[in-house]
Amino acid sequence: MNKAILIIQCPDQKGIVAAVSQFLYSYNGNILEVDQHVDGEMGMFFMRASWELDSFGLKKEDIKTQFQTEVGEKFSMQFNLHFNFPKPRMAIFVSKLSHCLFDILGRHHSGQLAVDIPLVISNHEDLKPIVAAFGIPFYTIPVTAATKASAEGQQMELMKSHAIDFVVLARYMQIISPEFIRFFPNRIINIHHSFLPAFVGAKPYHAAYERGVKIIGATAHYVTEELDAGPIIEQEVARVRHHNTVPELVQIGQDVEKMVLSKAIKFHIERKVLAFKNKTVIFY
Amino acid sequence: MNKAILIIQCPDQKGIVAAVSQFLYSYNGNILEVDQHVDGEMGMFFMRASWELDSFGLKKEDIKTQFQTEVGEKFSMQFNLHFNFPKPRMAIFVSKLSHCLFDILGRHHSGQLAVDIPLVISNHEDLKPIVAAFGIPFYTIPVTAATKASAEGQQMELMKSHAIDFVVLARYMQIISPEFIRFFPNRIINIHHSFLPAFVGAKPYHAAYERGVKIIGATAHYVTEELDAGPIIEQEVARVRHHNTVPELVQIGQDVEKMVLSKAIKFHIERKVLAFKNKTVIFY
Amino acid sequence: MNKAILIIQCPDQKGIVAAVSQFLYSYNGNILEVDQHVDGEMGMFFMRASWELDSFGLKKEDIKTQFQTEVGEKFSMQFNLHFNFPKPRMAIFVSKLSHCLFDILGRHHSGQLAVDIPLVISNHEDLKPIVAAFGIPFYTIPVTAATKASAEGQQMELMKSHAIDFVVLARYMQIISPEFIRFFPNRIINIHHSFLPAFVGAKPYHAAYERGVKIIGATAHYVTEELDAGPIIEQEVARVRHHNTVPELVQIGQDVEKMVLSKAIKFHIERKVLAFKNKTVIFY
Amino acid sequence: MNKAILIIQCPDQKGIVAAVSQFLYSYNGNILEVDQHVDGEMGMFFMRASWELDSFGLKKEDIKTQFQTEVGEKFSMQFNLHFNFPKPRMAIFVSKLSHCLFDILGRHHSGQLAVDIPLVISNHEDLKPIVAAFGIPFYTIPVTAATKASAEGQQMELMKSHAIDFVVLARYMQIISPEFIRFFPNRIINIHHSFLPAFVGAKPYHAAYERGVKIIGATAHYVTEELDAGPIIEQEVARVRHHNTVPELVQIGQDVEKMVLSKAIKFHIERKVLAFKNKTVIFY
Repeated sequence: MNKAILIIQCPDQKGIVAAVSQFLYSYNGNILEVDQHVDGEMGMFFMRASWELDSFGLKKEDIKTQFQTEVGEKFSMQFNLHFNFPKPRMAIFVSKLSHCLFDILGRHHSGQLAVDIPLVISNHEDLKPIVAAFGIPFYTIPVTAATKASAEGQQMELMKSHAIDFVVLARYMQIISPEFIRFFPNRIINIHHSFLPAFVGAKPYHAAYERGVKIIGATAHYVTEELDAGPIIEQEVARVRHHNTVPELVQIGQDVEKMVLSKAIKFHIERKVLAFKNKTVIFY
Repeated sequence: MNKAILIIQCPDQKGIVAAVSQFLYSYNGNILEVDQHVDGEMGMFFMRASWELDSFGLKKEDIKTQFQTEVGEKFSMQFNLHFNFPKPRMAIFVSKLSHCLFDILGRHHSGQLAVDIPLVISNHEDLKPIVAAFGIPFYTIPVTAATKASAEGQQMELMKSHAIDFVVLARYMQIISPEFIRFFPNRIINIHHSFLPAFVGAKPYHAAYERGVKIIGATAHYVTEELDAGPIIEQEVARVRHHNTVPELVQIGQDVEKMVLSKAIKFHIERKVLAFKNKTVIFY
Repeated sequence: MNKAILIIQCPDQKGIVAAVSQFLYSYNGNILEVDQHVDGEMGMFFMRASWELDSFGLKKEDIKTQFQTEVGEKFSMQFNLHFNFPKPRMAIFVSKLSHCLFDILGRHHSGQLAVDIPLVISNHEDLKPIVAAFGIPFYTIPVTAATKASAEGQQMELMKSHAIDFVVLARYMQIISPEFIRFFPNRIINIHHSFLPAFVGAKPYHAAYERGVKIIGATAHYVTEELDAGPIIEQEVARVRHHNTVPELVQIGQDVEKMVLSKAIKFHIERKVLAFKNKTVIFY
Repeated sequence: MNKAILIIQCPDQKGIVAAVSQFLYSYNGNILEVDQHVDGEMGMFFMRASWELDSFGLKKEDIKTQFQTEVGEKFSMQFNLHFNFPKPRMAIFVSKLSHCLFDILGRHHSGQLAVDIPLVISNHEDLKPIVAAFGIPFYTIPVTAATKASAEGQQMELMKSHAIDFVVLARYMQIISPEFIRFFPNRIINIHHSFLPAFVGAKPYHAAYERGVKIIGATAHYVTEELDAGPIIEQEVARVRHHNTVPELVQIGQDVEKMVLSKAIKFHIERKVLAFKNKTVIFY
């Protein structure tokens, strides 16, 4: 089914739901989903609405302007209009660890993720054969302290030439530069292998072991310039016991990581995430 | 804050959200929450909307008629209008087990449940002293096979004289008659000590032990004439291990029961449950 | 590290732990893990002990006889002696659904499962390319009502010629014959796509949808001749909501299925499962 | 059933399990539970064993000396010998929040906690009536900056005169002095209202709200002189959503707090916790 999705934010005030739903109704729109959230503390209103496109009375290319004129201006809205076609284009960055990558590729292969994956980029060769088996181009771009800038230049060229919409860091293990981040605001999804804000930085499983926690976790978040501090999209946890060694924590944690990352990707693809300041609204 | 809550069901069609939100806006209503659900298989539309009453342009007693005239008729709606005051009046039925009762009383005492509890009814004396400490009248109505009808008669009298809105069976352990059930359609909440539909009937923990399951659960549901088959409001589970005996399953399960029942009560009080046929829509 | 694992069952009586641990100590064994379980109802004692082999005072091939003579006989023990090398040999049976298969292959590829996978058998061609990418032989053996017996004959030949130790049905979707089951007692692991004993049989997600449950699940169990009734190894659940359609339940459920099945396989490989009558003891 | 429980720690070496189980067997002990843990990194061995006392060949008062002579010395063990009678004596400290207190009292009332509760101490009067209904003495000892030292003096007197074994801070909200802590090493259980080490210090729910986490938690730990840094006994979490306000986080979190604290108390009472350095071994 062809559908349109509208993600709205504006100062809270009366009449917004009525105006948006009236707009859609006036053009014969069949609303599929509508969800709203009022942040009382900030006085902000957030909304997501989706509707069928085929019977809609406006042409795809006219909706944005018409909505801005009829509704958006009145309420000082910022809004994004999305369609579920063509599919968004996702780049995956990996290093040597395969668990997140395979989970994404498996889901994609079975049709669970409505996304195109034009390429996978890695600083190592290791995962190339499997990616090839899934029929996806694999680019190896080694990264050292000396070559970091030029490596990122190559990555950026690939992003542009493949018209990439958003990037997934599937345990990529490299710091992304502020320039790259600014190019994809709230469009780089990282998986951090701890239950943030616990255990920021490197080696969170070692830190969890040292502290003797009874539960470990993983966090999918949008990358911002401050490390491990971007808006959280999804988190999940798993129980551990005193006898679990660090390698066992790693293994238990990897299951959590892959599930959390894939869930976050799905939310992002389905336009269910609205990032505002340092938080996310997840419409589901 | 004084608020009104509208729960709607009608055949699915275009324009419902627009009509409802336009109605509220036209009387200067400030929408607090709006949530909808379309059941594509049944072709049904369900909606919950809440708004502030104080600034609303209709008198409390006129809303129902006006909404029916302006909106309800057009869409063949069935709807219920609720207010968060006066608080609903809840009767609790218990037997000898205290865990669910104490959990409810504790929450009520700390202000977590916006409900009045005019009375607790039991077929045993055991729990009277604690209920008394919470300042709630306790009626002991013994039930035997011979006295069941007259006992239920007394219970019904108490329901009427205390203007009870809904009933909670907090591990009451007695079968409720069809007459009583019909008097409170989708307004009797029971906690069943299994993860329905597994282990219907008596002694579910024994059955779980015999089957060797690794997870047990509890189910809060509205009581219908068919035993353990009413619309499910909430379920939760807990892990168990091979070494857990039946008494240990009971103890682990009781924790799940009390949490599930209290959650279901809260959903019911806050008018977040819409029961339709044999299922529930939970707006949260 | 080379290690030996002893799994014991016998009538409960005093002195068992002392006798077993004394036996291991007398041959200079360094105990790595020891776990026991007494089933008071059945009067049975179960135990798992593992120890380092390299410094052990008995030759690998003599341990069984010596233990039987010194300890086993006295306590009327039934016991199995395992070593963590050579690795057990696992056959995977699949149909068209890929989620469980890919999860297993991904874990195997990253070294998480200490098992050899000599072959994958399927009644369809679909999953062959990916299995090939992992370097594992893939045999397509179509199954129809008419060819079922001969198909199973071919499967059994492959089991023998590849010296298969145990079989994993990764959503194989075909009923296994009693003869095949008897050949692998408690050595065929199936994943059932419901939280057993709820929703036995076909189409459990449809049944869950109809019943309106708030939680769905999956169950890994050993296959016995009675359908969906074998000893449960592991179960897990996921929350669902009223708006989830059957296809969404399927998708949510597949995540649970793959995690549960992989966990059960790991327990089986590490010899942490003792199946007795219709239940399992899981030593972990 | 009268039983004895032995909790052992010593440098790891061969023969410990054999020596302990042989000791128990030599005096006709029927082992009920045995569990061990080797910390390979620290080279430490930890063990818990319980056995029936009635048929045991040593008098209760002789076991400690005899075990030390026959086994303890040889392995340089530190060990504690416990009996399940008389019941341990637990003091509860509370402030104004009732949820943890009521949960503990409810469990105690239904016989779920094998403990005596000689008194509840609070710096406020609020919870006195309910505690009285459960028949437990309630002492109000106000605490201000000026009176803190003398208040703690009174508390300590009550601890001594009531022969208190361990203390539970059920959201007591006051800092305990180092002197008091040293008097009860690893015998003061606190519930911290966050998933430590995330959100140490005051107002963790506000901090969780600000950070936009998707999961909140609670942590039961032994109190040490470093705030919120003692050995963790148990943790649990609950999902939250973007629309949850701070008061809602508090309410959701209180459910987690009370369950975690009660579970930790139960572990402590049943002598299933071994605290070593900054961690715990939980034998279950």
